[in-house]
Amino acid sequence: MKFCSSCGAATDVRIPAGDTRLRAVCTACGTIHYVNPKMVLGTIPVWGDQVLLCRRAIEPRYGLWTLPAGFMEVGESTAHGAMRETLEEAGARVTLERLFSVFDIPHVDQVHLFYLAQLNDLNIQAGEESLEVRLFREQEIPWPHIAFRTITATLRFYFHDRREGVTTVHTGDIRDVRLPHDADTGLA
Amino acid sequence: MKFCSSCGAATDVRIPAGDTRLRAVCTACGTIHYVNPKMVLGTIPVWGDQVLLCRRAIEPRYGLWTLPAGFMEVGESTAHGAMRETLEEAGARVTLERLFSVFDIPHVDQVHLFYLAQLNDLNIQAGEESLEVRLFREQEIPWPHIAFRTITATLRFYFHDRREGVTTVHTGDIRDVRLPHDADTGLA
Repeated sequence: MKFCSSCGAATDVRIPAGDTRLRAVCTACGTIHYVNPKMVLGTIPVWGDQVLLCRRAIEPRYGLWTLPAGFMEVGESTAHGAMRETLEEAGARVTLERLFSVFDIPHVDQVHLFYLAQLNDLNIQAGEESLEVRLFREQEIPWPHIAFRTITATLRFYFHDRREGVTTVHTGDIRDVRLPHDADTGLA
Repeated sequence: MKFCSSCGAATDVRIPAGDTRLRAVCTACGTIHYVNPKMVLGTIPVWGDQVLLCRRAIEPRYGLWTLPAGFMEVGESTAHGAMRETLEEAGARVTLERLFSVFDIPHVDQVHLFYLAQLNDLNIQAGEESLEVRLFREQEIPWPHIAFRTITATLRFYFHDRREGVTTVHTGDIRDVRLPHDADTGLA
């Protein structure tokens, strides 16, 4: 932030009165420009024993698999945004069940939040940001080709919890999250 | 956003190629300026059967009571931010137990997230943004003088869940959240 978005004058980086952090402050109109982390919203779209994944048609991680997810927009709730992204990226309409995971990624200033959801039907279709969308059983998940660690963690917890009959909301700094041990695959 | 924060030129409001929403786009350098909702992080600081509240020394809702909470900063996790705000506003050091509530406030583009926490000790002191801080038993909570609806909801669910032995994460658009019925006080 080099220039003030309110008046166009140059900004200066300093600690405003009563604050403890460096902020971009306008040298002309005095506006303080705060920068805050962003939320990424998504779903785990379930159909029987299968989960829908999208193969990314955009960078970063072009060509790798992900759960449908994207940046929260102004004017929407987390639930609405998660459903919107699922529709945009996979053409899929879902019914949300509950909040499943909230993972912090402080090194990129993001919080990733996933809802567990049921697909309403099998009318799915890759959106502009997806190369393809398809359903996977647990043993078919392309683990080495998952785009982000929060997606791997959310999927691993989903299959683990389903097997164990657990209903919990998973949280934490993604760098510290310990994935559940999976005896079948040897993944840890 | 009238001016580009990258180059200082005027921005234009239009739908960028491949997008579906109006964005501020720089007329000179082409930078697209996205605006996203902000997260507010806080704690329910518990000491035995009491909860710590802060009386606000700032607008909005000057003079009303709140749980310690504030905007998430870049570079921190939600847990770290919740603890930081608790220290800044109430001088209180806490140990987090678990995620308690995630409420959407889409009409002000915020998501409020609260962690259940235990006070480490009774060294509490009003910070710059608080007039006073004190502990309240359930029957002492100044319900008509709580600053925000997400605080009322979080407190109501806390006391209800403690009584019922429930451990759940409360979510939803705050305009739709149904508070638990409280037989003792008649609050609904």
